[in-house]
Amino acid sequence: MYQLFIGNKNYSSWSLRPWLLATELDIQFEEQLVPFDEGGSWSKFRKFSPTGLVPCLVDGDTTIWDSLAITEYLYEAYPRVWPQDKRARAWARCAASEMHAGFFALRNQCSMSCGVTVALNQVDRSLQKDLDRIDELWRQGLSRFGGPFLGGQAFTAVDAFFAPVVIRLSGYQLTLSAEAMHYCERILALPGVQSWIAAALDEPWREVEHEQELLAVGAIVEDRRRG
Amino acid sequence: MYQLFIGNKNYSSWSLRPWLLATELDIQFEEQLVPFDEGGSWSKFRKFSPTGLVPCLVDGDTTIWDSLAITEYLYEAYPRVWPQDKRARAWARCAASEMHAGFFALRNQCSMSCGVTVALNQVDRSLQKDLDRIDELWRQGLSRFGGPFLGGQAFTAVDAFFAPVVIRLSGYQLTLSAEAMHYCERILALPGVQSWIAAALDEPWREVEHEQELLAVGAIVEDRRRG
Repeated sequence: MYQLFIGNKNYSSWSLRPWLLATELDIQFEEQLVPFDEGGSWSKFRKFSPTGLVPCLVDGDTTIWDSLAITEYLYEAYPRVWPQDKRARAWARCAASEMHAGFFALRNQCSMSCGVTVALNQVDRSLQKDLDRIDELWRQGLSRFGGPFLGGQAFTAVDAFFAPVVIRLSGYQLTLSAEAMHYCERILALPGVQSWIAAALDEPWREVEHEQELLAVGAIVEDRRRG
Repeated sequence: MYQLFIGNKNYSSWSLRPWLLATELDIQFEEQLVPFDEGGSWSKFRKFSPTGLVPCLVDGDTTIWDSLAITEYLYEAYPRVWPQDKRARAWARCAASEMHAGFFALRNQCSMSCGVTVALNQVDRSLQKDLDRIDELWRQGLSRFGGPFLGGQAFTAVDAFFAPVVIRLSGYQLTLSAEAMHYCERILALPGVQSWIAAALDEPWREVEHEQELLAVGAIVEDRRRG
């Protein structure tokens, strides 16, 4: 069986992507959660991941250490990972790749913390540009392929790639167009997302660097973590 | 026929990737070179690319606006895009994805200019870390799959993804292990790479921002551009 190494569910937005993909698509895997350690994560993670980063999928003697590569690896065995329609699949891969290599303002200024609501001090131009692009992209996918998911009727990898964005928008109280906000509601209602967030809230770990990222950009309005 | 939109060959490292892949694999395409404009590239590029970035592949009514998504799109029609062996393919996708989303010190400090040799003021820790990782990655691929290319006997997308790194190493006079340097020689000798560099040297355009990036990190030792 696949082993999927992930970081803390509360913080690790990259881990959420393949975890949610496999969970929503009923792809069996064994979860290996390795919590972040202050200052020590890199060497700890290097034991299973060549970059010292999560997520990392291990299939027998094959290690797949990047989220997009994991997606393509799973796609070879499970064609439902990407949309069935060729045009939708090309679009979905572009959108997921754009997330993989971009949206740095959103990723840096609004780091994921499932249990925390933050009032941002400001939404600067670079963050607004990211939000505008995400809105444009989501509306394009939803209208072009008919919804309710970005690549059409079925939940696929492109939705998994944007799921952490949905959690960030909610946590940082950011608003997009009505179509985009309805999409967010659908993603937040998925059993896999609900289950990930519930586990995140129960985690006992607080990692200084991630906590400081939250405090650097705004004020904490609510902390629902029970762990 | 595919239309491949690219930027200046001298500067555009991302454009080189799919261009070289298609060229070395004899995949027919029509090259659409759109030179960078000072301050105006984004709106000019937005006419064909939804992110305003290059490269961008157009196939009839389908636009593929990201280099990794282009690679997977081509792979669906041309299985030789990735290594034939499943383990090598998984590795190659991880390595290409790692390039796609990382190596920022190398990308920011050593921007590509095919015609220029630069003596760097310094190799800082972040740049050295990127160089060490590239060395580790290349030696792993070459030894695990037998070479002479990263994924085995054939040139595939993972080599195309690292070709701009090869040009940067040469331009910034950076040295890796002997195995890695031999790999660089093989990549630089490819007809596609030779042809790209020759065209880059003939380009008449000098774009201020790219030129300043070179001057910001070191001194220009040689400028072989004839255009």
